[in-house]
Amino acid sequence: MLIAEIIGTVTSTIKVKKIEGTKLKIARTIDPEGKPTGKFFIVEDGVGVGTGEIVLLSDDDVAINRIVGIDQTPIKSAVVAKVEKINIYDLKDQA
Amino acid sequence: MLIAEIIGTVTSTIKVKKIEGTKLKIARTIDPEGKPTGKFFIVEDGVGVGTGEIVLLSDDDVAINRIVGIDQTPIKSAVVAKVEKINIYDLKDQA
Amino acid sequence: MLIAEIIGTVTSTIKVKKIEGTKLKIARTIDPEGKPTGKFFIVEDGVGVGTGEIVLLSDDDVAINRIVGIDQTPIKSAVVAKVEKINIYDLKDQA
Amino acid sequence: MLIAEIIGTVTSTIKVKKIEGTKLKIARTIDPEGKPTGKFFIVEDGVGVGTGEIVLLSDDDVAINRIVGIDQTPIKSAVVAKVEKINIYDLKDQA
Amino acid sequence: MLIAEIIGTVTSTIKVKKIEGTKLKIARTIDPEGKPTGKFFIVEDGVGVGTGEIVLLSDDDVAINRIVGIDQTPIKSAVVAKVEKINIYDLKDQA
Repeated sequence: MLIAEIIGTVTSTIKVKKIEGTKLKIARTIDPEGKPTGKFFIVEDGVGVGTGEIVLLSDDDVAINRIVGIDQTPIKSAVVAKVEKINIYDLKDQA
Repeated sequence: MLIAEIIGTVTSTIKVKKIEGTKLKIARTIDPEGKPTGKFFIVEDGVGVGTGEIVLLSDDDVAINRIVGIDQTPIKSAVVAKVEKINIYDLKDQA
Repeated sequence: MLIAEIIGTVTSTIKVKKIEGTKLKIARTIDPEGKPTGKFFIVEDGVGVGTGEIVLLSDDDVAINRIVGIDQTPIKSAVVAKVEKINIYDLKDQA
Repeated sequence: MLIAEIIGTVTSTIKVKKIEGTKLKIARTIDPEGKPTGKFFIVEDGVGVGTGEIVLLSDDDVAINRIVGIDQTPIKSAVVAKVEKINIYDLKDQA
Repeated sequence: MLIAEIIGTVTSTIKVKKIEGTKLKIARTIDPEGKPTGKFFIVEDGVGVGTGEIVLLSDDDVAINRIVGIDQTPIKSAVVAKVEKINIYDLKDQA
């Protein structure tokens, strides 16, 4: 799983049937200190988080089908946890 | 799923049987502000979008087979939604 | 699928049984304007292309098994089309 | 598998059912000389390692389900070995 | 598949049952001219190569299970061929 920050939502009117009715959010990946690492994913929210919150993203197919509530969703990334606290040991030699 | 912009089409005469008859488009990934993020994919268009439009790409096998209309297509990325609006909370500290 | 250029071939004498007899080519990924994007793959050629030609690569397991002609090939990338023409709308703001 | 260093833990109260009760750790990928390579993963610990230790990460679905002890966990990366020693031949021309 | 160079071995005493007894090697990916491309994998050696040799890596699940000799190994990358010769057409415009 990856650490990410929810930074917004995306609205789309024309879409394939399997994602109608889903409320898609935009996540950007971050490092454990909160710095963006340059990747963006359109995600399903499995736990109900707000914009600006830190989350864990999973790209497990079965987990996401269960969260979205339909089989074979084209959505490939979902919020599976809201992060309360990140405890870092030592990042002094981080690249 | 990823956010991308449709930037063109690709024409090929010699190809494996499974992709004959498909109309392939070129998508480049973008960040939520529209800046290209450096990746290009040849995609099947599942919703009917024009060049220059912002879309959501899925790489889910089953979803793409359904969109293309044949089992076991070699195509691994498809447009599943046309993006109307991207609502961003705050990108002030973006890398 | 990705756009790539065939840049050479690879010869190997010692190999696992499942890839004996295959003629492997080297592909490097390119952007729609032909500029290399830094990735190299050892690929099976499903359509018969020459060195220097622009192709579409697929990493679909089933498609590649069909092209190679054996089940469960360790090869994970194959040429599925020879590109005739790339029609680009506008790349003026490319990163 | 990838080489990584365990750099911390993550605490989350709100999460999907399938990851309740798991103790998630933060791993950052490193090269064989210990230099971070810029990726971070939230992982399940399959062998019991402490913070600061060097490990091998696997992203094999079946292996991770077995480690976590439940089917279809959304966790996609797990510690499968604690590294004792890395023996490098020659990195003089490393990029 | 990817081109890589075997640069060392890794020793680990504590590990999950499924990788006990395997002799793991360290591979770094290279481009067709031998220049490292920045990725490192812990791999199973399916053909018996020495350190410093150029190889082809596969990440095909079934192929790796067969090489390792057990089902559902957590190892996700294996040496499937020793490279004798790389024949490059033209890299004059390489990025």
